[in-house]
Amino acid sequence: PLPASAVVAVVGTGAMGAGIAQVAAAAGHVVKLLDNRPGAAAKAIEGIRAQFGKLADKGKMSTEAAQAAAERLIAVDQLAELADAALVVEAIVENLEAKQKLYGDLENIVGADCIFGTNTSSISVTSIGAALQRPERLAGLHFFNPAPLMKLVEIVSGLATARVVADTLFATAAAWGKTPVHARSTPGFIVNRVARPYYAEALRILNEGGGDCATLDAIMRDAGGFRMGPFELMDMIGHDVNFAVTRSVWNAFYNDARFTPSLIQQELVDAGFFGRKSGRGFYDYREGAARPAPQVAVAQHAPDEIVLHGHSAAVHALADRLFERNIPHTWGEANDGRIAETGGAVIFVTDGRTATQRATEMGIANVVLIDLALDYATAGRIAVGAAINCFAPAVGAAISLLQAAGFEVCRLGDTPGLAVMRTVAMLANEAADAVNQGVCDAAGADAAMKLGVNYPRGPLEWADRVGLPAICAVLANLARFYGEDRYRVSPLIQQRVFAGKKIHD
Amino acid sequence: PLPASAVVAVVGTGAMGAGIAQVAAAAGHVVKLLDNRPGAAAKAIEGIRAQFGKLADKGKMSTEAAQAAAERLIAVDQLAELADAALVVEAIVENLEAKQKLYGDLENIVGADCIFGTNTSSISVTSIGAALQRPERLAGLHFFNPAPLMKLVEIVSGLATARVVADTLFATAAAWGKTPVHARSTPGFIVNRVARPYYAEALRILNEGGGDCATLDAIMRDAGGFRMGPFELMDMIGHDVNFAVTRSVWNAFYNDARFTPSLIQQELVDAGFFGRKSGRGFYDYREGAARPAPQVAVAQHAPDEIVLHGHSAAVHALADRLFERNIPHTWGEANDGRIAETGGAVIFVTDGRTATQRATEMGIANVVLIDLALDYATAGRIAVGAAINCFAPAVGAAISLLQAAGFEVCRLGDTPGLAVMRTVAMLANEAADAVNQGVCDAAGADAAMKLGVNYPRGPLEWADRVGLPAICAVLANLARFYGEDRYRVSPLIQQRVFAGKKIHD
Amino acid sequence: PLPASAVVAVVGTGAMGAGIAQVAAAAGHVVKLLDNRPGAAAKAIEGIRAQFGKLADKGKMSTEAAQAAAERLIAVDQLAELADAALVVEAIVENLEAKQKLYGDLENIVGADCIFGTNTSSISVTSIGAALQRPERLAGLHFFNPAPLMKLVEIVSGLATARVVADTLFATAAAWGKTPVHARSTPGFIVNRVARPYYAEALRILNEGGGDCATLDAIMRDAGGFRMGPFELMDMIGHDVNFAVTRSVWNAFYNDARFTPSLIQQELVDAGFFGRKSGRGFYDYREGAARPAPQVAVAQHAPDEIVLHGHSAAVHALADRLFERNIPHTWGEANDGRIAETGGAVIFVTDGRTATQRATEMGIANVVLIDLALDYATAGRIAVGAAINCFAPAVGAAISLLQAAGFEVCRLGDTPGLAVMRTVAMLANEAADAVNQGVCDAAGADAAMKLGVNYPRGPLEWADRVGLPAICAVLANLARFYGEDRYRVSPLIQQRVFAGKKIHD
Repeated sequence: PLPASAVVAVVGTGAMGAGIAQVAAAAGHVVKLLDNRPGAAAKAIEGIRAQFGKLADKGKMSTEAAQAAAERLIAVDQLAELADAALVVEAIVENLEAKQKLYGDLENIVGADCIFGTNTSSISVTSIGAALQRPERLAGLHFFNPAPLMKLVEIVSGLATARVVADTLFATAAAWGKTPVHARSTPGFIVNRVARPYYAEALRILNEGGGDCATLDAIMRDAGGFRMGPFELMDMIGHDVNFAVTRSVWNAFYNDARFTPSLIQQELVDAGFFGRKSGRGFYDYREGAARPAPQVAVAQHAPDEIVLHGHSAAVHALADRLFERNIPHTWGEANDGRIAETGGAVIFVTDGRTATQRATEMGIANVVLIDLALDYATAGRIAVGAAINCFAPAVGAAISLLQAAGFEVCRLGDTPGLAVMRTVAMLANEAADAVNQGVCDAAGADAAMKLGVNYPRGPLEWADRVGLPAICAVLANLARFYGEDRYRVSPLIQQRVFAGKKIHD
Repeated sequence: PLPASAVVAVVGTGAMGAGIAQVAAAAGHVVKLLDNRPGAAAKAIEGIRAQFGKLADKGKMSTEAAQAAAERLIAVDQLAELADAALVVEAIVENLEAKQKLYGDLENIVGADCIFGTNTSSISVTSIGAALQRPERLAGLHFFNPAPLMKLVEIVSGLATARVVADTLFATAAAWGKTPVHARSTPGFIVNRVARPYYAEALRILNEGGGDCATLDAIMRDAGGFRMGPFELMDMIGHDVNFAVTRSVWNAFYNDARFTPSLIQQELVDAGFFGRKSGRGFYDYREGAARPAPQVAVAQHAPDEIVLHGHSAAVHALADRLFERNIPHTWGEANDGRIAETGGAVIFVTDGRTATQRATEMGIANVVLIDLALDYATAGRIAVGAAINCFAPAVGAAISLLQAAGFEVCRLGDTPGLAVMRTVAMLANEAADAVNQGVCDAAGADAAMKLGVNYPRGPLEWADRVGLPAICAVLANLARFYGEDRYRVSPLIQQRVFAGKKIHD
Repeated sequence: PLPASAVVAVVGTGAMGAGIAQVAAAAGHVVKLLDNRPGAAAKAIEGIRAQFGKLADKGKMSTEAAQAAAERLIAVDQLAELADAALVVEAIVENLEAKQKLYGDLENIVGADCIFGTNTSSISVTSIGAALQRPERLAGLHFFNPAPLMKLVEIVSGLATARVVADTLFATAAAWGKTPVHARSTPGFIVNRVARPYYAEALRILNEGGGDCATLDAIMRDAGGFRMGPFELMDMIGHDVNFAVTRSVWNAFYNDARFTPSLIQQELVDAGFFGRKSGRGFYDYREGAARPAPQVAVAQHAPDEIVLHGHSAAVHALADRLFERNIPHTWGEANDGRIAETGGAVIFVTDGRTATQRATEMGIANVVLIDLALDYATAGRIAVGAAINCFAPAVGAAISLLQAAGFEVCRLGDTPGLAVMRTVAMLANEAADAVNQGVCDAAGADAAMKLGVNYPRGPLEWADRVGLPAICAVLANLARFYGEDRYRVSPLIQQRVFAGKKIHD
């Protein structure tokens, strides 16, 4: 890593630049801040010093350390004052020409060993480097907002980036207390690429009438373990921003169907319903507007007879939950994948087929499917779907079984792969494709999603946990049902399944 | 509905605006016409009054009613004069900003309950509404040309449209003698979306050498029951217009392969061959140019031995037609789907496979396929295709059998799904997808296509009539043959087939 | 053909124009050269005369003929001087408006029978013709660089081109010693369309980590028989140019997945690594840079026991090569497609599946795949891949067997269809699609690729030679593995396989 004695420069002192400066100063570096808006650098330093003060007040830093870190921050006015920097991080406007000009000018000022670390989230590191005499000294150093708190830093190598430069940035970020992950300069890097399906699959389900926003959000939170549901999250990010990112990644991947935006996003943007900030989005944030509740099945008595089957994680958790609640049940010996029977209903975990399709293909009348949960043992909610021809009392019995096991049950339409399973499978598929194309390694992909967007589990470890053949089946069944390239299984997943291996083996 | 006493305003008095004004006046409303071209509104009124006169002359209106309706038309000069309107229909230029400005200005003039009904055919209702303080009062009110004659009105709800506004427009259009259909604001609404395959599939067949324009047009008319064949229809619409719509829908659906334009359209536009209006298109309309005739098989004697099989609509109609013409035939007991045998040929109705493929996959040498007809009992023409290895005399026998039954026979190349079946399957597929995505309901889709573009049968009722599993098989076989997302089966069709149900059940 | 007495005009006297003028003059025509850059025509004539001089020196022309041909070249200044031309070939800047203006102006100058032959490589002939009063007289006359040496001329018919005009140009090109091929005006005509997979598949393999540039280039040259590997060829063409062509063809085909560009191309262009001309591309051309060597397996002793199986071209060549080198081997009787066994490894020629997939699907543990070679009897190099679970000594044995047979062995990753087979299959697929869409005939496609880009064999004859069912299987397996429209099998190939026929039958 760069020694603590190395001078770090931060150009652009908005929220990201200031956050990065705070991290570097806390790590012991003299940090020079430069901003082309007069007074902005000084104001940013004021803000950072206030942060250090608060941290000292809370006992998270010693007063001395806070004081010392505060003093290491220096506002400068001229590029020339950055001549002694060992690292120049830029966090200026997301504009290729501006970044090229900045680093091009700096090349004539700084020393030969100075490293350039762009904080861009969306511009090709390779493109920025093309303006330099020595592009090998540039890499992406992509922090997440708020930089002092978020652990992830994507270390992005462009085509010309020297390995030693990326390695130095990696080690430096680690020395600063971050978790760096190497990435190859490709659209969206890791996080902004792999996260696309979290929005996209929810939008597909919504567009096909599989469920409403409030219900799907609740399922993703309470069964999937995600911190926010996709719709409330998009409302928070802003649809103008999210749609622009979606379109940009889609275009950069040559309109790959895996990234195709949704008409719904277009409609929201067309309507000016940008989300929280404009008062309307998927939800209505105007004064007095009521937040819709998820559709929850009415509570019923436990069914008389419950038979459990098989050895899946789902059925074992179900058995434990029933046992804890003193709900009688017996075990059967079916080995067709069913996990339970009650009141005529045959219950399976989704394999990516619709319940109706599975009923027909398996020759079983009353098929009810349950969705994936992050942890079936502790989940407070579960989604279910039933075959079109499923006898209504059978659906009711299946729901009451799950209620008896302590789940709030949300019934979705008979949508293939339901919500959590479908989303997790597609997140894993995208992560696998990034790995397959050398963008990052599997551990990096998992770390990035946990630390960059707070996923409860890395998509690839999650897929391994569910069982890679099961994830592969879900994707293959989605592909078969929809007949779209969008759901093609990543070569990496296929190869690992053919070889009988996990991703992380 | 709006009471007859409500004042209706029409802004923009071209053909569509004038037609709508005529309809509203005939229904009893005072109609105020406004146009920013000086004198245009007055001239439009003159034209409408002439129409009322003609209708009275023909006895379709009483003279008194015609006179009264004529007097309810009022030309105005200023937006301010529309202050008392209960409904303002705009039929101005297809330009988002112009429409936004018009309704934005009107919002300060009209009453709080005034409804805005845009006649746009291609602009997002949601986008127009974004300029309004109260977008809930705006909906699409999309008439078809000529408005006094065409029954269909698409009532298009944008993201912010109030349900009551759409319902009022629906009831009002019904009160005016129209057949309104609810639609969600999505690219092409119903008609301009669902109709795409009528052009697209014909263009595909042409591009792959499956048949020539005159033959395909004749088949679509005389076997399919469509009023005009796709090529003569495109020549009438104009390729500049049709290609622009095709591209626009394709782009709006994020380049969905189902809407991909044809290179042939591009070539026609590049050549300046816009159709009738420019003198050349698929056909040559210049003076003295001969219209090519369809390729019809030379008439032959009836074959000696005809054996019919099965219970399909096709074979029963064939039997009746042979019987009426005193052509001897016997019945066999094959149950592999064949409908007839003669002279070594085995005849099937197309299932979306090529004859060559079917011959190979079924292990039958001389396979001849017939196309779908709107009604096998009355169709004057039928298309056939034969396997590459089909013995020529066998093809001849099959053709002469059909000729003996009174069909003009057009032999196409061995193109999968032939012409009518392929087109109807894709029309149904598109309609099903619109339904699946909540754009309209199944009845609405059927009504829209019958009343908006004069289809002889709604695509979904047609699919039900042919048999949804058969339609699903045709699509799945096209998808298998072409390997393109374009031919994926709509989730709705799949689910209905899995459930053993029709679309209209 | 045009008689030798006909005057030929060439407008635009850059490399292509001068080359065409040379060809026409050598064939006996008076050739008038016109260029809007003052003095350019005269200078071009000087250069051509020098060429004739060299040809005479080398004895390839008599001194008299060279002298006479040189004298038939006339520089002119004004369009009006082309009034007596029977053919005007333009080779000016690739700009639609410029070409339209040139031919539009000429139409008022030349005689009614004068033919226009545009040498455009990328602009729609139909579009150029749209500016003419008589577009029927225009066709493409597309020479390849260097025109005096390259045999191919694409005769490109636009929508309005008269058959007789295309036929006259065809006969004239033939009379000039060229091999003309008819083409319909479509994006990329023949060569620039059919050649896309040569780059695209190599880029896919590279992007998925299947092999490095130097190894893949060596395989394509030494096993595939191509004159240059795809990466060195792209470096020579220039990535700016090649990427622009790729994007242009992709856009013109409405973003057909078969033409999707690669992110790697974008990166190279973004980095300014345009190839040879800029000093960096896939390879480093800067002074002192070392050219990386292909990854070749270390030579090992011949394995103890070799058993050969089956009757394929591959195994017969292998047997001959082993026999020539006195390597003992025996014959087995397996009929599952394997060609050899040694040291536990079971060796197959790739069928488009990965080795891992094939191992799983066939239930064989140690699967090793070999790639296609242009001629297994003489190839100096062969690519291999092994299943993930393949026992390392088994892979080693398979490699040493191939080394014992005189191959340099390059081990690739377990990439589906390896390199040569995948590329040839996709070249054939593209050629077949061009034929299927009436762009050219099969013989024309083969001739174009051999004479326009020096392929060692026409893609369709190559596919016939490998066996069309095998090529179809490779494509179908690629489609299954990748789940992308990109690998769909051309309808023509499918139909020929269903019918049990070759392409050239």
